[in-house]
Amino acid sequence: MTGAILEFYFDFSSPYGYLAAEQIEALAARQGRRVAWRPFLLGAVFKAIGGQPLVEQPMKGDYARRDMARSAREHSLPLTFPPTFPFPSVAACRAVYWRQDGDPAAAGDLVLALYRRAFAEGGDIVTAEGVIAVAEGLGIAQTTLEAALEDKRVKDRTRQEVEAALTRGVFGSPFIFVEDEPFWGADRLPMLERWLERGGW
Amino acid sequence: MTGAILEFYFDFSSPYGYLAAEQIEALAARQGRRVAWRPFLLGAVFKAIGGQPLVEQPMKGDYARRDMARSAREHSLPLTFPPTFPFPSVAACRAVYWRQDGDPAAAGDLVLALYRRAFAEGGDIVTAEGVIAVAEGLGIAQTTLEAALEDKRVKDRTRQEVEAALTRGVFGSPFIFVEDEPFWGADRLPMLERWLERGGW
Repeated sequence: MTGAILEFYFDFSSPYGYLAAEQIEALAARQGRRVAWRPFLLGAVFKAIGGQPLVEQPMKGDYARRDMARSAREHSLPLTFPPTFPFPSVAACRAVYWRQDGDPAAAGDLVLALYRRAFAEGGDIVTAEGVIAVAEGLGIAQTTLEAALEDKRVKDRTRQEVEAALTRGVFGSPFIFVEDEPFWGADRLPMLERWLERGGW
Repeated sequence: MTGAILEFYFDFSSPYGYLAAEQIEALAARQGRRVAWRPFLLGAVFKAIGGQPLVEQPMKGDYARRDMARSAREHSLPLTFPPTFPFPSVAACRAVYWRQDGDPAAAGDLVLALYRRAFAEGGDIVTAEGVIAVAEGLGIAQTTLEAALEDKRVKDRTRQEVEAALTRGVFGSPFIFVEDEPFWGADRLPMLERWLERGGW
């Protein structure tokens, strides 16, 4: 299976996406796979089929905040909610697709740096400035990314990826495909790994 | 912790409730706990906060059916959907609360027998007749349960339990409390068990 991929769909505003992103590279390495990072926008899902952010839902919202904190503690990961939460994540999304086209192998570092800024440090990745600041920490020049975030091709590519995710049936974050087998939720990682070990069941 | 309880809330129409019910007694025994069975009605939750059965939701419904089947296979449990699904489960609910008042230790056997009729055999537990047929297999006289299902006290008790579940914050099935710590979903059983082993974290 070496070389085969795990397609990791996520919204940057999703704490469960963050928790899974912190674990997926190690899981992929153990199973001889590599990760393809596929940021998308949950807002597009809500627009298409209805729904609202988990933490804003009655009853579920309170439970979710508690479960997110508990899940983070269980994996010894820091979790801090950014001042605006949930937040629009299209700038971060565009930055990752731009990075993927320029330097595919480095896209994962940018994803994790952005996620950590948002949910480990509780920082801002809503604005272009917030995203650029994180990218600078990885040696990406401010002016280069500033231009990329306004580039029509990058915007179009991002929109197409979000539409493709919906067409494929992605409705939550994280959402991971092993070939055509879908796994929804950070809590599906153990099942996903057993699936890979056994070749399905 | 011996003697302390796991409060297991579930809707009989919930396949994930069935999968968890098949595992919870063994988990409780490993951890020196006993199970308190708390059937409730998801319909009351949908009425209170909106929502609809998982399998009827766009996109999520298809995924859920696939994940239910996969989860059953992973635990080597049979899974067959009854002809009417999702189904109204108030008769089964009343039978369990009646049984609990008469013979508390035997309530678990009735829960599992009902769940297996519905989801292992794909049989009917919607009607009073369907529920009574299952109970007869456990030696409960047809006429006794027939009367109980029409008994106002049993109906009132069931309504109160459903209301109490909502007040407590139960919004899905299965939903398990360890003291005041809530765990939602069959996929939370491993986390629940680690929680018991470590005394929280």
